[in-house]
Amino acid sequence: MKDLCLRPKGDSYNSLHCHCINLIYRTQQGQKHLHLFSCDLHMVLVKSRMEATGGLVSTPKALPYFVALSQILGLTVVAVTGAWLGLYRGGLAWESSLQFNVHPLCMVIGMVFLQGDALLVYRVFRNETKRTTKILHGLLHIFALIIALVGLVAVFNYHSKMNYADLYSLHSWCGLLIFILYFLQWLLGFSFFLFPGASFSLRNQYRPQHVFFGATLFVLSVGTTLLGIKEALLLGLSKKYSMFQPEGILANILGLLLICFAVVVLYILTREGWVRPRRAEEQALSMDFKTLTEGDSPGSQ
Amino acid sequence: MKDLCLRPKGDSYNSLHCHCINLIYRTQQGQKHLHLFSCDLHMVLVKSRMEATGGLVSTPKALPYFVALSQILGLTVVAVTGAWLGLYRGGLAWESSLQFNVHPLCMVIGMVFLQGDALLVYRVFRNETKRTTKILHGLLHIFALIIALVGLVAVFNYHSKMNYADLYSLHSWCGLLIFILYFLQWLLGFSFFLFPGASFSLRNQYRPQHVFFGATLFVLSVGTTLLGIKEALLLGLSKKYSMFQPEGILANILGLLLICFAVVVLYILTREGWVRPRRAEEQALSMDFKTLTEGDSPGSQ
Repeated sequence: MKDLCLRPKGDSYNSLHCHCINLIYRTQQGQKHLHLFSCDLHMVLVKSRMEATGGLVSTPKALPYFVALSQILGLTVVAVTGAWLGLYRGGLAWESSLQFNVHPLCMVIGMVFLQGDALLVYRVFRNETKRTTKILHGLLHIFALIIALVGLVAVFNYHSKMNYADLYSLHSWCGLLIFILYFLQWLLGFSFFLFPGASFSLRNQYRPQHVFFGATLFVLSVGTTLLGIKEALLLGLSKKYSMFQPEGILANILGLLLICFAVVVLYILTREGWVRPRRAEEQALSMDFKTLTEGDSPGSQ
Repeated sequence: MKDLCLRPKGDSYNSLHCHCINLIYRTQQGQKHLHLFSCDLHMVLVKSRMEATGGLVSTPKALPYFVALSQILGLTVVAVTGAWLGLYRGGLAWESSLQFNVHPLCMVIGMVFLQGDALLVYRVFRNETKRTTKILHGLLHIFALIIALVGLVAVFNYHSKMNYADLYSLHSWCGLLIFILYFLQWLLGFSFFLFPGASFSLRNQYRPQHVFFGATLFVLSVGTTLLGIKEALLLGLSKKYSMFQPEGILANILGLLLICFAVVVLYILTREGWVRPRRAEEQALSMDFKTLTEGDSPGSQ
């Protein structure tokens, strides 16, 4: 069956002026062909947009403001965590009892700020090649994992020195589980998207799962951080917490800032029109690759 | 300019066998026409699918299993909350000091279980009219709000009787803020989607915001519940919490179950292929309405 014409007639593929596209489709392949067809039209539109902006993909108007807001919130969260630990918890050290304080700071920098920024990479870097963006995404996650690992070592080391029990609280159960899942997510992401072995169709099948669980692990990391703040306040301040002590109010504000950071990051990620558009050559490459590897040429079915 | 032909040629609009669609478009209107065109093709595909299933929209294979899992998790969460309060906190009453226990149970039923189920309505009821589904969605949210209000009254009443301070903790700040925002979200949803005043384009502009903030408020409600569990354990068990007491372990498991419920609900909501397809008559109605209200006929530009 050779009914499907994916190319606009004539040699005017690079321009959008008055094309005529003929699409003949059949019931069984309807959805698939519609998809291929819309990919193709999308490619024409991207090309046209790139031509209009001198080869650059345009950025949605509101996106830079939301990204700036996310970075202000993220940096404020890190600064307020540092201020809390410095003003009310004696600051940081690796040897003394202050070793515990390394834990919240590292977790906020790694599992919240860097993890959030790693998710935003595909929205911010719209004109770099897909490979460069992928590598930056993977690197930010690796930095996040290493910094979080330091934070985990700090708290286990501190508990062992002080003869405190490990892993009894909801915060610790969630935290360890999320760290392990985050590491697995990184390994799977690397194997599917950076390691050259995975096929086009396997990548396409896994991508939505990777995106969903990436965002979920970020939200769960923020939630676990809130549980940690709550634990630190109730154990540290005890009944003073209900007396509106400045430390309690500062840590509550830190909790609200963490929520705001997470909400802004998720808002940016879920806006349909803000997804990084595929560059025309990526689209062409993936279509050709699909055709080569799966014999899925438009007319082959 | 009357270049755009949105209808397949001939009178074979209800069948998908060998149609030919001619689409002529121009640069400036490219994206808009592509959208209208894809709506139209979607409508043809929905019609064809409905014909194949005897007038019913087909349900994705895995969806019922995930919905069943969400309900098992949701009901387990409510049951475990009840068991916790019954076994370790003396059960429920409105008059005595047991009044506090009304708070966690109501919040879990209202702000977690019912709110989650209200979000799932559009994935579960695929063959009912849009209006019926909307009303069910709004009703479930109203029930959730009323039950949560009872839970809030219980805790404020209990605090007042015991002379405890109000609104000092991160849990209480988040809880009150989310309840107010949830009520506003309901009001806005009612005004835009059930009250007949809002125009087609206004609804379309607001819909993505409504969906995003709905899911966000659900996640924040679950997070706030976790903070509440943590607070109850640290204040109730104090140092016994670190001795792996059965109550602590049960409440930690409750926390993990709450997270699982939220993740499954969000997974169902974010699967692209699981979105409730528009029924053909809804599509036709909205297209005609758009044409009538905005003079946006395909050939009018």
